[in-house]
Amino acid sequence: MTERLVYLSGELVPESEAKISIFDAAVNLGHCVTDSARTFRHSPFKLDQHIARLYDSLKVARINPGITQQDMLAATLDLLERNLKLYRAEDDCWIVHNVSAGMAPMGPSPVQSSKATIMIANQPLNLTGWQKYYHEGCHAVTPFSRQIPSQSLDARIKNRSRMFYTLAEQEVKIVDNDAQSVILDTDGFVAENKGGNVFLVKNGVVRTPTSINGLAGVTRQTTLEICDTLGISREETRLLPYDLYTADEVFFTSTPYCLMPATRFNGLPVGDGQVGPVSQAILKGWFDLTGVDVIAQADAQINS
Amino acid sequence: MTERLVYLSGELVPESEAKISIFDAAVNLGHCVTDSARTFRHSPFKLDQHIARLYDSLKVARINPGITQQDMLAATLDLLERNLKLYRAEDDCWIVHNVSAGMAPMGPSPVQSSKATIMIANQPLNLTGWQKYYHEGCHAVTPFSRQIPSQSLDARIKNRSRMFYTLAEQEVKIVDNDAQSVILDTDGFVAENKGGNVFLVKNGVVRTPTSINGLAGVTRQTTLEICDTLGISREETRLLPYDLYTADEVFFTSTPYCLMPATRFNGLPVGDGQVGPVSQAILKGWFDLTGVDVIAQADAQINS
Amino acid sequence: MTERLVYLSGELVPESEAKISIFDAAVNLGHCVTDSARTFRHSPFKLDQHIARLYDSLKVARINPGITQQDMLAATLDLLERNLKLYRAEDDCWIVHNVSAGMAPMGPSPVQSSKATIMIANQPLNLTGWQKYYHEGCHAVTPFSRQIPSQSLDARIKNRSRMFYTLAEQEVKIVDNDAQSVILDTDGFVAENKGGNVFLVKNGVVRTPTSINGLAGVTRQTTLEICDTLGISREETRLLPYDLYTADEVFFTSTPYCLMPATRFNGLPVGDGQVGPVSQAILKGWFDLTGVDVIAQADAQINS
Amino acid sequence: MTERLVYLSGELVPESEAKISIFDAAVNLGHCVTDSARTFRHSPFKLDQHIARLYDSLKVARINPGITQQDMLAATLDLLERNLKLYRAEDDCWIVHNVSAGMAPMGPSPVQSSKATIMIANQPLNLTGWQKYYHEGCHAVTPFSRQIPSQSLDARIKNRSRMFYTLAEQEVKIVDNDAQSVILDTDGFVAENKGGNVFLVKNGVVRTPTSINGLAGVTRQTTLEICDTLGISREETRLLPYDLYTADEVFFTSTPYCLMPATRFNGLPVGDGQVGPVSQAILKGWFDLTGVDVIAQADAQINS
Amino acid sequence: MTERLVYLSGELVPESEAKISIFDAAVNLGHCVTDSARTFRHSPFKLDQHIARLYDSLKVARINPGITQQDMLAATLDLLERNLKLYRAEDDCWIVHNVSAGMAPMGPSPVQSSKATIMIANQPLNLTGWQKYYHEGCHAVTPFSRQIPSQSLDARIKNRSRMFYTLAEQEVKIVDNDAQSVILDTDGFVAENKGGNVFLVKNGVVRTPTSINGLAGVTRQTTLEICDTLGISREETRLLPYDLYTADEVFFTSTPYCLMPATRFNGLPVGDGQVGPVSQAILKGWFDLTGVDVIAQADAQINS
Amino acid sequence: MTERLVYLSGELVPESEAKISIFDAAVNLGHCVTDSARTFRHSPFKLDQHIARLYDSLKVARINPGITQQDMLAATLDLLERNLKLYRAEDDCWIVHNVSAGMAPMGPSPVQSSKATIMIANQPLNLTGWQKYYHEGCHAVTPFSRQIPSQSLDARIKNRSRMFYTLAEQEVKIVDNDAQSVILDTDGFVAENKGGNVFLVKNGVVRTPTSINGLAGVTRQTTLEICDTLGISREETRLLPYDLYTADEVFFTSTPYCLMPATRFNGLPVGDGQVGPVSQAILKGWFDLTGVDVIAQADAQINS
Repeated sequence: MTERLVYLSGELVPESEAKISIFDAAVNLGHCVTDSARTFRHSPFKLDQHIARLYDSLKVARINPGITQQDMLAATLDLLERNLKLYRAEDDCWIVHNVSAGMAPMGPSPVQSSKATIMIANQPLNLTGWQKYYHEGCHAVTPFSRQIPSQSLDARIKNRSRMFYTLAEQEVKIVDNDAQSVILDTDGFVAENKGGNVFLVKNGVVRTPTSINGLAGVTRQTTLEICDTLGISREETRLLPYDLYTADEVFFTSTPYCLMPATRFNGLPVGDGQVGPVSQAILKGWFDLTGVDVIAQADAQINS
Repeated sequence: MTERLVYLSGELVPESEAKISIFDAAVNLGHCVTDSARTFRHSPFKLDQHIARLYDSLKVARINPGITQQDMLAATLDLLERNLKLYRAEDDCWIVHNVSAGMAPMGPSPVQSSKATIMIANQPLNLTGWQKYYHEGCHAVTPFSRQIPSQSLDARIKNRSRMFYTLAEQEVKIVDNDAQSVILDTDGFVAENKGGNVFLVKNGVVRTPTSINGLAGVTRQTTLEICDTLGISREETRLLPYDLYTADEVFFTSTPYCLMPATRFNGLPVGDGQVGPVSQAILKGWFDLTGVDVIAQADAQINS
Repeated sequence: MTERLVYLSGELVPESEAKISIFDAAVNLGHCVTDSARTFRHSPFKLDQHIARLYDSLKVARINPGITQQDMLAATLDLLERNLKLYRAEDDCWIVHNVSAGMAPMGPSPVQSSKATIMIANQPLNLTGWQKYYHEGCHAVTPFSRQIPSQSLDARIKNRSRMFYTLAEQEVKIVDNDAQSVILDTDGFVAENKGGNVFLVKNGVVRTPTSINGLAGVTRQTTLEICDTLGISREETRLLPYDLYTADEVFFTSTPYCLMPATRFNGLPVGDGQVGPVSQAILKGWFDLTGVDVIAQADAQINS
Repeated sequence: MTERLVYLSGELVPESEAKISIFDAAVNLGHCVTDSARTFRHSPFKLDQHIARLYDSLKVARINPGITQQDMLAATLDLLERNLKLYRAEDDCWIVHNVSAGMAPMGPSPVQSSKATIMIANQPLNLTGWQKYYHEGCHAVTPFSRQIPSQSLDARIKNRSRMFYTLAEQEVKIVDNDAQSVILDTDGFVAENKGGNVFLVKNGVVRTPTSINGLAGVTRQTTLEICDTLGISREETRLLPYDLYTADEVFFTSTPYCLMPATRFNGLPVGDGQVGPVSQAILKGWFDLTGVDVIAQADAQINS
Repeated sequence: MTERLVYLSGELVPESEAKISIFDAAVNLGHCVTDSARTFRHSPFKLDQHIARLYDSLKVARINPGITQQDMLAATLDLLERNLKLYRAEDDCWIVHNVSAGMAPMGPSPVQSSKATIMIANQPLNLTGWQKYYHEGCHAVTPFSRQIPSQSLDARIKNRSRMFYTLAEQEVKIVDNDAQSVILDTDGFVAENKGGNVFLVKNGVVRTPTSINGLAGVTRQTTLEICDTLGISREETRLLPYDLYTADEVFFTSTPYCLMPATRFNGLPVGDGQVGPVSQAILKGWFDLTGVDVIAQADAQINS
Repeated sequence: MTERLVYLSGELVPESEAKISIFDAAVNLGHCVTDSARTFRHSPFKLDQHIARLYDSLKVARINPGITQQDMLAATLDLLERNLKLYRAEDDCWIVHNVSAGMAPMGPSPVQSSKATIMIANQPLNLTGWQKYYHEGCHAVTPFSRQIPSQSLDARIKNRSRMFYTLAEQEVKIVDNDAQSVILDTDGFVAENKGGNVFLVKNGVVRTPTSINGLAGVTRQTTLEICDTLGISREETRLLPYDLYTADEVFFTSTPYCLMPATRFNGLPVGDGQVGPVSQAILKGWFDLTGVDVIAQADAQINS
């Protein structure tokens, strides 16, 4: 085997041939839920939680995947085992699930009428885009568009109808190519990043929004647990841009990079403008938890 | 040729082979805009307006299609000419465009980094799902989820991140299999239907929401023009469920069916519970304008 | 005495003659506050709390009842003692107070200008409408109309201007005759049921909205206390439909039925679609607290 | 006959005996719609419009009155004829309808389950409370509570669940006994008065809010028609307190008093603090339309 | 006289000595209203309208200026006559009024307790900051902060509590030094620029927001009148960023520069990215109306 | 020295000569942040916290003060030492900082372009305006205007653009000269007082809004600490007018007066209408903490 495989509705196909009809609900209706886990040292991390969340998303999205949670897990692990043979020991990979409502005929009803399309893939975990932020921090910037409110679409249904996030993230790129979004909700409170959660540190306390207006991230939850392990106080609360402007440290969390420091916020330095000690301590906590130093992993990718 | 063709980023491929990568932005990010026109007696209707709107959507979605509006039109007409040979004279077809931002690598930025994926298709215009509503009316029902507000994602960017619409439409199906959604905005005003616009008739005046919180439908616009032709007063305004409850007639408009009467609203009869005279007059106006009696077309499909 | 009595502004009259003028503020202005308690084994339950809440409602509604809280309690107990003679030992009764601002002349000012109208009644506690839900669960359904916001009228003023609740509850009946409402507030968060509170159980934790956007129910409070007694974790927080879709159990609480399980939510099963163990444990807790097995009481009423 | 009669669900009873059960939906649920017309020189004014609006309210409130609109009109006129015999020529009377969903048993469903309760009454049109405002103007004051939004309860369902209005009107009485409410909606725009509509005059143009967030008053509509007759420009638009502060004239309209000038707004004089010429012209227009000089009628009542 | 004078509460003082106490309400409370007019060819333009608006602002801000509108006009013209002697023929000047509530002692009440502070100044109209935008257009950018809603502070009270505007304008400077703000309201609709109004041109029609959520600009009004004179259709309506993205032309209007073209919007070109013909026609209309070619005036200032 | 001095951008000038240009950003743009501390027995109280907050405000307001936090503190203490010589032992004084962005030329950008204007003053702490409220309580009244939302301007940027507060406070004065404002946010929740925070006591528990929609007051924080010292339970939460109507005690906190009881709320008595025991205990706690009996201090000022 020289090419990674993709699980496509029961078949294993090479990545380059992993295609779906343009009439699939994933394309026509954005009616597709998803979840993304990663490996650390080739071991999947909290995969059961990711798959449980996937099944929560499926239920609320009224998509019947056609296979049980157990079979999904088995298929995922089987695929991973095959694909990991192509990875170097020092690299890791994504474990991404997409499940759509299958073929979607045009007509009066979008109710699922055919077998779900299940896609599982293991792309390489390429950290080069984030690497320099571990050292210098990125630039956290607030887009002007506002998070889709929960009464329209709950952000906890992790789904592929991501036009809003895609446009919000592009808005912040007009400020700075190194900008990462801090999305506000329609009341102006901090919601989330396009694919992660937002944290701040102030007077030694780690604070992050409750997950009511943003993704209930597994990485977010792990970060809070690392804080507990390290004896760092932490609080889930409502946050405003004022809190980020006056914070000592700001960082994002997400599956691929674990923790990404932000050293500027809307053009002003965060704290002293350097990656801060609490951010570093939590990254160290990730190392202790997973055995992987993600900074070293990212640096190695840059240098290879 | 025995199978319809699809235009796929410059290639013509049979519909059954029209597939895109699961790593395309259409799948991964819902970063895909769209437009749907139809033919009447095998002639495309207001195709230039549809393509102009497609290019407006592309601009705001920050997708570079890579070809000009003129080339898009030419490719569309060429494809249509080929496909129409497979259609019976009495049938018509969709002209559907999807344009995504192309291959979307996972990473910190969703800015388009590869050639757009352009999909043009001409599926048959199957009216059988709506046919009985021309005669009996459908059941207009209000879902509890609220339209995505414009400050999150403007509904006029006609796009494929349609999870919200898909879920809202499924909410009304738990009331009645013949239910069609009347979606409210976050202030409770009538916005639109999952794929069309909402109108009412009261004391001879046709009223529909302004297009500020819903799709600026081409069919909606044509309906207003037919009203003008027929000397029917019409008004674009804000509407509430109360207005629909107390209306004499209610109907939807959309590209495939032109006008679909609703004879019940949230379980109560609209007017006398029959398809009303203004609805019928406007459907007659469509016939006069296009040469196609859509009711007859739908009836013929049911009977064939 | 062969007919229950009603306390009507100081007089005791037979229920069938308990009438008020059509010019009373209760009729003309909905300017009437209320509270509903019940007996368990013929003993009033937390009656003092109900009457204290009634006086809070009176104050905020700017109605002077004309008698003290102590006299109200005495009148209530006296009436109850008389009426209970007509009840079988196995049955219980409502203790309902309505207090309006009295006769309301039409004119520029709705300030109370005459003696309050005080109504106290003890109708039988008929559980037959809810009986089957103890066994099968009801269908929790979300109406599209939104809770009156607190800045218009605080739901904690327990009052008889209940048109909103009445219409919201009728909206869910078009889904299912066994539907009970889960009303959302104008931000889409779960507020309350038309006459009760909403709870869910997830991973063994009982969760219910804070009482800021819904009735501060006495039964709700008692349920939380039963959780504490039973060592069940519980949390007052903000909840969204997503939380109910993905819950293990959902239930309502209200004075007459104590706890009513819901086994479906908007057409989907809650958990495994059966009445769950935590719901059953709390109902058992009510039995232990009050000496009344409300399920048995309801079953007996059905069979009698 | 020495006492006015009331039509009570088919019976004619003396006003002092016009009573309903305390278990009626009008009392228990505020589930009661209403409309109020008046006579001018003993002739009912636009009674058909009032009754048509009553039937719109009934439909949306899901109350079946049990009699046709024609029978309701006939019963109303019959009652009026009887009662007018008790009126002096110079006086006029209210024509008030209340229709509730009838007896409302306590239980899981508020769907109407018994015959509607229909109440029609003809109380004297007592203008003494408003009389001095014709000459001096009243004090328009903004309460801090906000209009119930349409997505909770549409103000055009003219109903008796008036707790909100009653409390808002009492809020302005703590400013001034001559205060009349100018209620704002939840966005801060002028909605309506507790029982009427709000108008202003600026540079000769009469302006009033659209009826989307307030009662669609018959008197409001008649006032606009009088403006047209008199050649006064008028506009339906959104208004803010700023517009009232800087207006030349402010007035209210409602069935009993037709037009009531306001010469102060939140403690500041409106224009020069006197009843203005446009207000006077419109009042003269009412005289021309109805044959009744309401100011003279009010003055006579004060003096009698 | 070698230095311009300032009118300061009845005194004429040199500009460099025009100072107020740090305990003035203008400093301590931002309790200061303002208006800014300009001259064309040394003649004040619509000065009476500006002063009338100033007095509207004063009334709503509850500041008593202590002098009549006539005296304010006289003082303004007298000052202008004196100061114009120092101006070259080709230059023009501001006519700026600030009126505060005077000395403001700290304590429980901010009610005006001393003589108003009246400031009138005639600074040179320096167009050099805007000059290049006449030729190249500026960059219209949307800040993430939202316009103060009218229910908090009506933007039509033209006042000096401008912290919000100042911060919003600085937010757009982090995108581009040539950025000018397009401020959105809390629903995401276009409100205004920090000191001007926003217009677009689409298919030959000029469109601008109604003045309900932004300043009712005199320049805005004059622009609409110029459109009428030139036979250009124009509409006051609600606008969203989508409308600006898809417009043919975008421009701002304000007292000093009359009309400022914007050729980019949030990083994308407006139309073809050039100053458009309608913008040019309206600037020509200003020339015809005032006798001043503001572009030439700006160019001359750059070159001098 | 016979007159107090003011620190004005590095100079010490007599208070009567402490003036700034009318072209300063403090006047022209309200671009001025502030903080107010006080002395107790001539010692500054928590001055470092006040100055830290000032520097947070400066950062978010994008004003560069030009001097370090340490230098600001030194200048403040130096000034205080000089001015205290003019105070009697029994009196105390304000320590007020204002820092504006300096001279503000009119033009396209409000970015700070000159040296900041720094004003430090020590006016006498005159408690006579509040004195009687310590004994009788004031009248807490709700204005109809709503707090500026955080997404427009975060209240924690303590700034001098106080027009909103000034108008809201004047609205409540039309109810009662002894009225103090209880400002609501745009959702109707209690935000703050024009210059202080709002607390209530119910069943022995002290409750105050979280600081997310109001000033994060130093006095508020001290009050919570006093509660902890005294063993009084306290909670930061969302509060509505209902909570104040039904509270046992209500009070305000602010730097000058520490705690001010309110014994009426919107015309109704709070509790029994007397200053309550918890309010008195906390005032006693202030005495214990600071050595100053503020009531005695206020009484002495009245009597002197």
